[in-house]
Amino acid sequence: MENFIFQSPTQFVFGRATEEQVGALVKAHGGTKVLLVYGQGSVVRSGLIDRVRRSLSKAEIPFVEMGQVMPNPTDEKVYEGIDLCRREGADFLLPVGGGSVIDCAKAIAAGVPYDGDFWDFFEGKTIPTALPVGVVLTIPAAGSEGSGNSVITKAALQKKISIRAPHVLRPRFAVMNPELTFTLPPYQTACGVVDMMAHIQERYFNNTPATQVTDCLSEALLRTIAELAPKVMAVPDDYDARANLEWCGTLAHNGLCGVGVAEDWASHAMEHELSALYGVAHGAGLAVVFPAWLTWMAHHNPRKVKQWAENVWHVDSSGLTELETCLEGISRYKDFLHSIGMPTTLGELGIENPDISLLSSRLHEHKGPTVGTYVPLGPADSREIYQLAQG
Amino acid sequence: MENFIFQSPTQFVFGRATEEQVGALVKAHGGTKVLLVYGQGSVVRSGLIDRVRRSLSKAEIPFVEMGQVMPNPTDEKVYEGIDLCRREGADFLLPVGGGSVIDCAKAIAAGVPYDGDFWDFFEGKTIPTALPVGVVLTIPAAGSEGSGNSVITKAALQKKISIRAPHVLRPRFAVMNPELTFTLPPYQTACGVVDMMAHIQERYFNNTPATQVTDCLSEALLRTIAELAPKVMAVPDDYDARANLEWCGTLAHNGLCGVGVAEDWASHAMEHELSALYGVAHGAGLAVVFPAWLTWMAHHNPRKVKQWAENVWHVDSSGLTELETCLEGISRYKDFLHSIGMPTTLGELGIENPDISLLSSRLHEHKGPTVGTYVPLGPADSREIYQLAQG
Repeated sequence: MENFIFQSPTQFVFGRATEEQVGALVKAHGGTKVLLVYGQGSVVRSGLIDRVRRSLSKAEIPFVEMGQVMPNPTDEKVYEGIDLCRREGADFLLPVGGGSVIDCAKAIAAGVPYDGDFWDFFEGKTIPTALPVGVVLTIPAAGSEGSGNSVITKAALQKKISIRAPHVLRPRFAVMNPELTFTLPPYQTACGVVDMMAHIQERYFNNTPATQVTDCLSEALLRTIAELAPKVMAVPDDYDARANLEWCGTLAHNGLCGVGVAEDWASHAMEHELSALYGVAHGAGLAVVFPAWLTWMAHHNPRKVKQWAENVWHVDSSGLTELETCLEGISRYKDFLHSIGMPTTLGELGIENPDISLLSSRLHEHKGPTVGTYVPLGPADSREIYQLAQG
Repeated sequence: MENFIFQSPTQFVFGRATEEQVGALVKAHGGTKVLLVYGQGSVVRSGLIDRVRRSLSKAEIPFVEMGQVMPNPTDEKVYEGIDLCRREGADFLLPVGGGSVIDCAKAIAAGVPYDGDFWDFFEGKTIPTALPVGVVLTIPAAGSEGSGNSVITKAALQKKISIRAPHVLRPRFAVMNPELTFTLPPYQTACGVVDMMAHIQERYFNNTPATQVTDCLSEALLRTIAELAPKVMAVPDDYDARANLEWCGTLAHNGLCGVGVAEDWASHAMEHELSALYGVAHGAGLAVVFPAWLTWMAHHNPRKVKQWAENVWHVDSSGLTELETCLEGISRYKDFLHSIGMPTTLGELGIENPDISLLSSRLHEHKGPTVGTYVPLGPADSREIYQLAQG
């Protein structure tokens, strides 16, 4: 186990009707004027935004609004939010939505007190400070409600970049009412399932010795997600299944599953290139990239893949070679992904003729000569994995 | 799953040599003068207190000291610390030790800014504010480094009372170097193992429906503790086993295992009466009380006991009745406790003629007509469980 620091300061306010507390929470966390940030209208149509407005008014917190944040939010939307915040004197960001809306709000929060261009942070400058952010979560997947991360796409360059600054970007509170997820379309629910499993797996596949606690928690969460996913797909308003799944999504990404290990994140980086070039949903892209990455790893560094096959997918390895055990686990993972309606090949994702050279060259241009740590991938390796993703 | 709030704001700074950061951490968390609190000398003899003093001096943080905090710390020691803090103008508590030292420091931290008698808090008054506390942990067991709890014994009344005030009593940081636990005597190591398992079990045994995530994490931690304990008993300086076990102890009690459930805590309450009357070590007392409590529950509310037997102790329930499955799990738990040198009966604990009526009457005097929630225990029930603890 490596030395680590763990801290999960976000106040998770979880359960039925918790969105009615949002005004009091903003006040308790020091906000005096709010920028309400949301997406393309489902939260308006459902009446949620109205309930949030009423809660803010009841707590006598004035607010301004910015809607129309798109999936894979762009720098342009962040500039718009920064201008609006400054013009109106808002001192608290309140995203109502999923990862895209939250990530956009985090970038705005960092940009407002900064003299230069906020994109500096995404180019590697540290983030000295940011406005506080509170969250009303409607899509459990990205884990952004409990993380200090933000992912923004530079529109002009089709360049999707992720930053991590837990000391300033981690939300102060996150309101999580599982009922708000009942109306998610099945495809989006399934994408969320893939994403939360991926967040655990990006940390789980490491070479750090003696990580029993982190391993056992990660495996337990992965098994539980795999058990819960068919339930929410079958019965979208199953409160208990939705609630347990939503909490898994937070624990997948609040740092718990990464303590004391060297994390990988190559699959996320490879997927970001797919999203940026072909505009696919992040979760669906991961459903294609991760099995390919695992197949490659089964041949190049099977240790943890075998453990994952046995402890998550219940593969009985007696009588099987190490490679066979790994491949059987990957096969069950793919069956699971198919069962919730996810693609597992680039073709199934709708990308018939992927430009693998371009994907790989952009990957290394953005991430450097090698990507990931479980096996650091050079350009030849990442090309092989994109090829495996063709099925 | 019930509505809940989860927050784990303590900054856990975990790993080798982390005690050298303590001065910088006090400074980062706003301390300007420290009261260093410790026990009966092992931290002095090991040289740890000297390293902590050097780190404080290097960060130019002045400090005063209070040693000789005993196991099961008393109100008298808390008064001494409050006086010293006020007289010297210390504004930051730095306990170096295990649960007793940390709990004593927390009570001092709450008492210093309070005009009245700090014991008010232990009699049920809320705690409006407290000085900040940072921890250097040397005994992983109590979980106090990540909790907002404190347990103090009123010496004149032999009365041991526990309070919970996460919003003010939770440590700002906890320095956790597993190497500091290498020299723990085997008995104390084993007591710690029992205590951390008990912290999980007090939460795990509940009647809340649909708690899959919390259950799966709790079972995973219990299994892992049971696997690690023999390793640290056999090889006290096995860094990786000590590190994993220490982290389990924190997660057992930082709230993670209690989200969304109605917790029980009857066994802790029953053990506190044993400690107060007979002066036994808390962990050893729990090793006696918990199997008796479980045996009683196997007959009165077996659902979760059966699940625990199957998922923690790997009992194959095919061909067994529910009761047999429960009892087989309890039998394996007792075997495990014996294997690490713990008693499982009052006799083995050295209490040959327990005053069961007195134990039970004091329990209900302190905790009310019923204790616990899994099955609320009345006086006749608690007497039966103390009787079962005789073996």
